[in-house]
Amino acid sequence: MLGQMMNQPLLISSILVHAERHHGSREIVSRRTEGDIHRYTYRDLARRARQMANALTGLGVETGQRVGTLGWNGYRHLELYYGSSGSGVVLNTLNPRLHPDQLVWIADDAEDQVIFFDLTFLPLVEATAARFRTVRQFVLMADKSAMPQDSKIPGLICYEDLIESAPDQYDWPLFDENTASSLCYTSGTTGNPKGVLYSHRSTVLHAYGSALPDSCGLSARDVVLPVVPMFHVNAWGTPFSAPLVGAKLVFPGPALDGKSLYELFEAEGVTFSAGVPTVWQGLLAHVEDNDLQFSTMNRTVIGGSACPPAMIEAFESKFSVQVLHGWGMTEMSPLGTVCALKPGQEKLPHSEQMAVKSKQGRAIFGVDMKIVDTDGNELPWDGKTTGELMVRGPWIMQQYFNRDDDALVHDAAGLGWFPTGDVAAIDEDGFMQITDRTKDVIKSGGEWISSIDLENIAMGHPAVAMAACIAAHHPKWDERPLLLVMLKPGKAVTRDEVLACFEGRVARWWVPDDVVFVDAIPLGATGKMQKNKLREMFRDHRLPTA
Amino acid sequence: MLGQMMNQPLLISSILVHAERHHGSREIVSRRTEGDIHRYTYRDLARRARQMANALTGLGVETGQRVGTLGWNGYRHLELYYGSSGSGVVLNTLNPRLHPDQLVWIADDAEDQVIFFDLTFLPLVEATAARFRTVRQFVLMADKSAMPQDSKIPGLICYEDLIESAPDQYDWPLFDENTASSLCYTSGTTGNPKGVLYSHRSTVLHAYGSALPDSCGLSARDVVLPVVPMFHVNAWGTPFSAPLVGAKLVFPGPALDGKSLYELFEAEGVTFSAGVPTVWQGLLAHVEDNDLQFSTMNRTVIGGSACPPAMIEAFESKFSVQVLHGWGMTEMSPLGTVCALKPGQEKLPHSEQMAVKSKQGRAIFGVDMKIVDTDGNELPWDGKTTGELMVRGPWIMQQYFNRDDDALVHDAAGLGWFPTGDVAAIDEDGFMQITDRTKDVIKSGGEWISSIDLENIAMGHPAVAMAACIAAHHPKWDERPLLLVMLKPGKAVTRDEVLACFEGRVARWWVPDDVVFVDAIPLGATGKMQKNKLREMFRDHRLPTA
Repeated sequence: MLGQMMNQPLLISSILVHAERHHGSREIVSRRTEGDIHRYTYRDLARRARQMANALTGLGVETGQRVGTLGWNGYRHLELYYGSSGSGVVLNTLNPRLHPDQLVWIADDAEDQVIFFDLTFLPLVEATAARFRTVRQFVLMADKSAMPQDSKIPGLICYEDLIESAPDQYDWPLFDENTASSLCYTSGTTGNPKGVLYSHRSTVLHAYGSALPDSCGLSARDVVLPVVPMFHVNAWGTPFSAPLVGAKLVFPGPALDGKSLYELFEAEGVTFSAGVPTVWQGLLAHVEDNDLQFSTMNRTVIGGSACPPAMIEAFESKFSVQVLHGWGMTEMSPLGTVCALKPGQEKLPHSEQMAVKSKQGRAIFGVDMKIVDTDGNELPWDGKTTGELMVRGPWIMQQYFNRDDDALVHDAAGLGWFPTGDVAAIDEDGFMQITDRTKDVIKSGGEWISSIDLENIAMGHPAVAMAACIAAHHPKWDERPLLLVMLKPGKAVTRDEVLACFEGRVARWWVPDDVVFVDAIPLGATGKMQKNKLREMFRDHRLPTA
Repeated sequence: MLGQMMNQPLLISSILVHAERHHGSREIVSRRTEGDIHRYTYRDLARRARQMANALTGLGVETGQRVGTLGWNGYRHLELYYGSSGSGVVLNTLNPRLHPDQLVWIADDAEDQVIFFDLTFLPLVEATAARFRTVRQFVLMADKSAMPQDSKIPGLICYEDLIESAPDQYDWPLFDENTASSLCYTSGTTGNPKGVLYSHRSTVLHAYGSALPDSCGLSARDVVLPVVPMFHVNAWGTPFSAPLVGAKLVFPGPALDGKSLYELFEAEGVTFSAGVPTVWQGLLAHVEDNDLQFSTMNRTVIGGSACPPAMIEAFESKFSVQVLHGWGMTEMSPLGTVCALKPGQEKLPHSEQMAVKSKQGRAIFGVDMKIVDTDGNELPWDGKTTGELMVRGPWIMQQYFNRDDDALVHDAAGLGWFPTGDVAAIDEDGFMQITDRTKDVIKSGGEWISSIDLENIAMGHPAVAMAACIAAHHPKWDERPLLLVMLKPGKAVTRDEVLACFEGRVARWWVPDDVVFVDAIPLGATGKMQKNKLREMFRDHRLPTA
């Protein structure tokens, strides 16, 4: 027997309609590629998103087809989020930091019909325009006055002309909530990128889950500045969760240096932000170097890669900014866990509390997780045992775009779990800690050594800017840890001083066999260390014999 | 094109599984009908709910069939919430405060197969057992030692025997999330009660919505004590929203007097509660009379009927307990609006802030609302214009149980809206204020006078315990307001002193034409004033001529 409740699909357009009707005068502030600050309201967003929906129809884009964007975080990008998905078109956010060949490959794989791009990427698009197989139209997201006089892009049109020419009356269509809404590609370290095709349902449920008090805890009184890009897993869903609660949105555009970010935080009264550790390093350095404080910011989600404990410490102790350590994946929309304390933990001694906060946190309702051994058997939650992390839930992917094979592993009860490729431990309270990637873990004499643990300890050293730990070949133990260290400018430290950090903090056999000082550590398009490159670079490194 | 996310239905059992896996050691504390305090954990709840699911199968209850409960807030009732709904059986919570004839009528309408009841209701069930048409089994929710020696109820079994005899292994079935989960009846003032049949989907979505920061704002660090009964719209969803976030649950059982509640609040560290104004009156009186303070409670949702501003003032100013004025209906699962301030409003002068807080609040994402005139045209949101309040959303009903007619009103775009029967104004910020019921509003010379506004003003008088305002017949104006006042014990006040309250606070023509002091104001089974009875009682009241 079915219940007798309203049959109302969970659609992305309903978030926009809610924001327009119930938070219509709340602001959206954007630092533009043009350089200035732009401000308008959810009411304006809704009007222009309707115009965009009409404009897409005018461009001949059909329901289910994809349109691509190469854009920073800004209001026009947000209009496309709603104008495209809301009307049944699929938004394919492209990561401009990828190699042009990969970009073209992705747009071809997605069969993008139109590409919208920011002024910054004009040279990139000019250089690649002829190569896109399915793109019929390029649109420059800029004011009319910023349009190039003679572009090499055939038929290039101005975003503002497009909006202006479209009527602002549009009834958001009702359709199956499982309809595709957006398409993000993972920047895989090997092979071609893989597309994750989100649905309206998964996006709305993720927005509910991520706004909960123990996730991002978003309210109408918040001012949300996503530093994480809208081209990277939908800026962790903030373009959906902020309007869902009526929070003010602040977009930093291309200016992601510490000074520009800090000024925007202060000028707009930002209370909540979200980003990867590498960006926060720049912000923290600016704030520390200039003896500044945050006057309104009270918490930030840090994820994308493990947040070094020293960063959590700096934010919380020096700046009274609560760090919510989080974890997720493109395949998970992305939020899976957030490290919100459980009762009693607020009263733990500082060091014990920091130990909890350095974990990636516990599952949001909607996400279930487990760790398994190589045979797929579930492992205990004791905070020590590690295994591959598996997840399931309504905002987790089951299959990559354009691939036939099921991405899930099915358990004895028939339930599908997505194998994350992460190695993790889960403690008795359900707090999960990533100890490695399955491909990065160092297999020494049949035992596992966590490269991330060793990196975190090294990064606690005041002279170390960044550290990467990789497996080096060892004749007896198969693999042994090799630590690569990038020093802070003007700092000097010896190999032995670095190794002294590990004393008493890890088992003796975990201590790296060698330290190599490097000028740079290669980062991928989403700011993660590229360990496959490092392994390649140090393939022939000879470890010192003990 | 469909997205490629996991096809995972929103099921009530998934809330229990989440609580068990991720918050397994969190407590559930119950004051029992037996008199003592019972405590166990979500892990225990999950085990016993699985036993109950097996037991229901053992009793021959089939998927989709209904089982009834006559129970206070307690752990056994919670086990039935999950054991029945989780296994696909529909839980029909019966309101024991209803007249026995109505109870029998409801259980017949629901075709309840089994009735579970607390010890308190043994006499009630003994008196009515023979009359239930479809009930095959009665189960007493008590310890074995509390079972009556010779009950008049044929084949009566003990809840604990039932649990004990059932295995604790049970795989929660996966099924369509639109499957019916529970059935609550509205205590209509006229005609037979009407059943609202919730679904798993509506229940889970409501739980997400109600846990958001601007709704109840529930986290794992909360200790939730629902004063609102589990037989009244599922205790406003707290049995679902608390485990969803891992909050501790505290159940008061039958002891709802101020002293018992206060002691439980303090002993268990309650941080959040929810109830109707009449219950809070008892609690506040106890706390005020004994010069007490709340040491852990920091906020409470008050709804069910309009919360008098004086009560909000008392909670916030004297006890530092934030009042979240809320509004909903059985037909809405029930939460529709919560009065969480918008940015800037925290800094308003006290009186202006109180004016906002006395409104029922703004829509949670998932609920949309509008006010319409008698022709169905949408009216402006200016905080003054009043009209009938209409709502829509995935946790709002579209049809009553066992009734063929569509309960919705369809707009020009074909969207269905549920007519609430409430009269309300909505301001520019989306804050809604109920001014009346469509049937209670006083129609004076073609204009509407809000009975609730007048009652709130009267209840601000220190001598007034309760006030009801009804329409009395008037030869010239058709209807004029008549104020019925119940004084606090030992207090005396004159008609003119009461009327003086209204001076300068409402338009002159809104001031009641007469005041009648009464010994009692009749309350319905859910604590609401029964104005239909009052109108009947004062049908022949002659208003004084001016």
